[in-house]
Amino acid sequence: MLASDQRNLALDEAEIYSDTLGSSEDEEIACGLPVSSEKFAKFESLPSKHDHEVFFRECLEILFKEAVFDGTARRNKVLDFKQPAELQEIFDFTLKNKASSHEDLKNIVKDIVKYSVKTGHPYFVNQLFSSVDPYGLIGQLITDALNPSAYTYEVAPIVILMEETVLKEMRKIVGWQNGEGDGIFCPGGSMANGYAISCARYKHFPQIKTKGLHGLPNLVLFTSEDAHYSIKKFASFLGLGSDNVRLVNTDAKGKMNLKHLEDLIEESLKNGDRPFMVCATAGTTVIGAFDPLDDLGMICQRHNLWFHVDAAWGGGALMSKQHRKLLKGIERADSVTWNPHKLLTAPQQCSTLLVRHENILSEAHSANAAYLFQKDKFYDTRYDTGDKHVQCGRKADVLKFWFMWKAKGSLGFEMHINKIFENSQYFYNTIKNRPEFEIVVPEPECTNICFWFVPTSLRTSSSQEFHERLSSDKEYWKKLHTIAPKIKERMMKEGTMMVTYQTHKNKPNFFRIVFQNSGLDKNDMLHLIEEFARLGNDL
Amino acid sequence: MLASDQRNLALDEAEIYSDTLGSSEDEEIACGLPVSSEKFAKFESLPSKHDHEVFFRECLEILFKEAVFDGTARRNKVLDFKQPAELQEIFDFTLKNKASSHEDLKNIVKDIVKYSVKTGHPYFVNQLFSSVDPYGLIGQLITDALNPSAYTYEVAPIVILMEETVLKEMRKIVGWQNGEGDGIFCPGGSMANGYAISCARYKHFPQIKTKGLHGLPNLVLFTSEDAHYSIKKFASFLGLGSDNVRLVNTDAKGKMNLKHLEDLIEESLKNGDRPFMVCATAGTTVIGAFDPLDDLGMICQRHNLWFHVDAAWGGGALMSKQHRKLLKGIERADSVTWNPHKLLTAPQQCSTLLVRHENILSEAHSANAAYLFQKDKFYDTRYDTGDKHVQCGRKADVLKFWFMWKAKGSLGFEMHINKIFENSQYFYNTIKNRPEFEIVVPEPECTNICFWFVPTSLRTSSSQEFHERLSSDKEYWKKLHTIAPKIKERMMKEGTMMVTYQTHKNKPNFFRIVFQNSGLDKNDMLHLIEEFARLGNDL
Repeated sequence: MLASDQRNLALDEAEIYSDTLGSSEDEEIACGLPVSSEKFAKFESLPSKHDHEVFFRECLEILFKEAVFDGTARRNKVLDFKQPAELQEIFDFTLKNKASSHEDLKNIVKDIVKYSVKTGHPYFVNQLFSSVDPYGLIGQLITDALNPSAYTYEVAPIVILMEETVLKEMRKIVGWQNGEGDGIFCPGGSMANGYAISCARYKHFPQIKTKGLHGLPNLVLFTSEDAHYSIKKFASFLGLGSDNVRLVNTDAKGKMNLKHLEDLIEESLKNGDRPFMVCATAGTTVIGAFDPLDDLGMICQRHNLWFHVDAAWGGGALMSKQHRKLLKGIERADSVTWNPHKLLTAPQQCSTLLVRHENILSEAHSANAAYLFQKDKFYDTRYDTGDKHVQCGRKADVLKFWFMWKAKGSLGFEMHINKIFENSQYFYNTIKNRPEFEIVVPEPECTNICFWFVPTSLRTSSSQEFHERLSSDKEYWKKLHTIAPKIKERMMKEGTMMVTYQTHKNKPNFFRIVFQNSGLDKNDMLHLIEEFARLGNDL
Repeated sequence: MLASDQRNLALDEAEIYSDTLGSSEDEEIACGLPVSSEKFAKFESLPSKHDHEVFFRECLEILFKEAVFDGTARRNKVLDFKQPAELQEIFDFTLKNKASSHEDLKNIVKDIVKYSVKTGHPYFVNQLFSSVDPYGLIGQLITDALNPSAYTYEVAPIVILMEETVLKEMRKIVGWQNGEGDGIFCPGGSMANGYAISCARYKHFPQIKTKGLHGLPNLVLFTSEDAHYSIKKFASFLGLGSDNVRLVNTDAKGKMNLKHLEDLIEESLKNGDRPFMVCATAGTTVIGAFDPLDDLGMICQRHNLWFHVDAAWGGGALMSKQHRKLLKGIERADSVTWNPHKLLTAPQQCSTLLVRHENILSEAHSANAAYLFQKDKFYDTRYDTGDKHVQCGRKADVLKFWFMWKAKGSLGFEMHINKIFENSQYFYNTIKNRPEFEIVVPEPECTNICFWFVPTSLRTSSSQEFHERLSSDKEYWKKLHTIAPKIKERMMKEGTMMVTYQTHKNKPNFFRIVFQNSGLDKNDMLHLIEEFARLGNDL
């Protein structure tokens, strides 16, 4: 099929500009460049078109085997860690004038895979994304093969209608009547939160779009101290200033303290600031806590504040009848960030901002560029949705998620969610009863489990004693603080698993393990637990 | 190789959550879900693991054939246009509870390809991106198979070092000594321009990061009336206000008028505003004009203004000794936007912001999240570069471009650039001498050619007469204005090519054709010209 296509463009280009492709005997592929030209002559040997096709397929076999299939097999490592200087020795990153041969390129592909972390591996439980969803991956490959840019219907008809369908379905699941409102796909949840802030302030002060913040009162917003750092980051980026994000205390479970929120609102008003927004979190980054959305919705209504819910992490739980109660009250939100690339395991990136107000995304962000969003087209130009975004060209992040949804059905997502919650509950219940583990946050709500691993040298006779020593014994605190980084170093160097650690409030470094991969089972939970013991007991 | 991996995760997950995958006889793949569970039993038949592998490969063959190879063959259509309502009839976008069979999914893949625009087709000359680069596509597939997130070295070691290499090489090409400075990959050139504005204002008022714009003087920036709309869009988004983007007149060739810029700066100062930045353009969106960078650099230095060059489109010309003179003076810039996914044909998206100031990206945007950027790691944490970005999770856009560069060499890029400039020059010279075409901007500098197609009914005896009628005869102007949309409709419905049109200043709709695909030759230029004649003569 391929060899017959003598005028193929994708091949043509490569044949000219790599010393390993194309055939000087084939007039068809010379593409207008005279074969005798001086430049062309610089290349020594030009293999046939057949070689070219072979190269393509060989690269894919390497990827299938070493990255996707073997790469995610339990018997293989999660990573083969090298220090930066070492990696630069082994792997030739430098860029040269001359082209590379296909032989060299194949070795490069192998090395890229070898020295990359296998984020699809079952024991990559380090971040709020993991696993390889086969339908997600196929969806991604479709997107790449077609390479659309999601701004106009004329260029991306399938993508535009998929976005409409998926975003509406997600709004229905959030609980907005008939899926009312609007939404966009964003390059990450941070961007989605940024858009939410932009919409919220536009709602209160539409003149910001043209006049800016100059001359307006000092705008302040509220989020919990456990909220994602993107709220502060985007407050800076959007010109509001990170100090104008007022941090509300959280309780022991990581939930926003309502009384403190109301106090901070009062205080801001007294100071002459202008509160305009509350950002709640449904599934905090470290602890996985869900803020009390129902109550927050009512507070926002009372104070006329935009109510945003950052459900980038926890949003996936909405797919499960059993677990969606964690997000009770989310339907009160003005906007919701929800990343299918997290709990629902769509490939990177797949993040959405959903808004209840139908036209606000467009009103706040449109610029009506005459060269792209012509109004005299021969189709309904309301389908040219790109002007809602601050991006112009935009990767079609919807396709893979739509394809996964079509493949598995909503029921498939529900079973997936139920399974990973079941796994994490099992992991939690198991470590709770083991002497090497101490719990940071009891009764976790989401699939993040936070714990200390306590080596033999620091072990106490009971959890009670552990917590007493932690709060009274500074030396003990310090010693424990060094344990997680040491275990992390060992696990990375051995490549057996990846779990992240961090501090939180006044707590010494602890591990946060995260489950999104429903391919894991109870045996995996036990395996991970034993691996901690193996790596950490002697420290 | 695949069938032997019984514990494969990627497969396991799918087997549980689709009614067409997995085998209930295979204990290994049950992943902890009891086979007899009520939910599991809802699925009727569970094909074997072998079927699963077959499905994967079959989807890839469809993509190879129908999207990549045949999809970009000249003998085939660029698109198969359907109106939105029609497409929704033909293609079932709806999402259901139940999973889909592999047979259904394969048909869906075929239909996605069928109704998508083939942006890799030689006659897709509609946007500032096009063509399928085979190495770029392989690079994209590697990225997808590994699914990294580019924030920390521990999760994306190869990607982080590729970014360092590529961005430094690009800075050297811009002309900054030893490649000094810093840079980031952004989800699109609009975002890159946004980052540039953010850095520029931070340089003048670092307190913006924490305190915001409140209480500061009214900040204004300058760009030409032909600049990309993202400058205004991000001025709004960043809280500066689109009115505070002061638009400098352009001359007949689309270049910024220096005298007018200086007048506007004066005027702003008189009004008590605070100028802080000039955004020049190297390759404007419609006309492809290059602003006089040397002069602009000197004006910026004199007025202490941040000098940004939006070379998203024209940046690729820096790769060619012959054409890089178009960007003479770019080395004076404080920051440069340069999108390899445009002139250099990297797959979507691949955009960079390069800055001459080493720490400013990090100073302006860092938030030091304790859960992600721990300082007590066992490797040099300066390689955890994610905190420079406003995104948190981030797709690794560098990999495909690095791979292309490795495959073709800088020389390959140079030949590519020279070829597409040669093509566009040939296209321009040919239409200049044909009576059906009238030139909008004489002597184009980049590979965009702007022209009117004049049907027989509106043809004049000379170009001079054409321009006279256009300026004196309102009816003639109106008639001509309707021609481009009509031709566009015809070409889309026939699917033979895609070329965009727009108005500009007081000109009626005209076409802008754009060349980035070095697989095209002079015969293609002639073919495109004849196609306009065929579609438009009788209008």
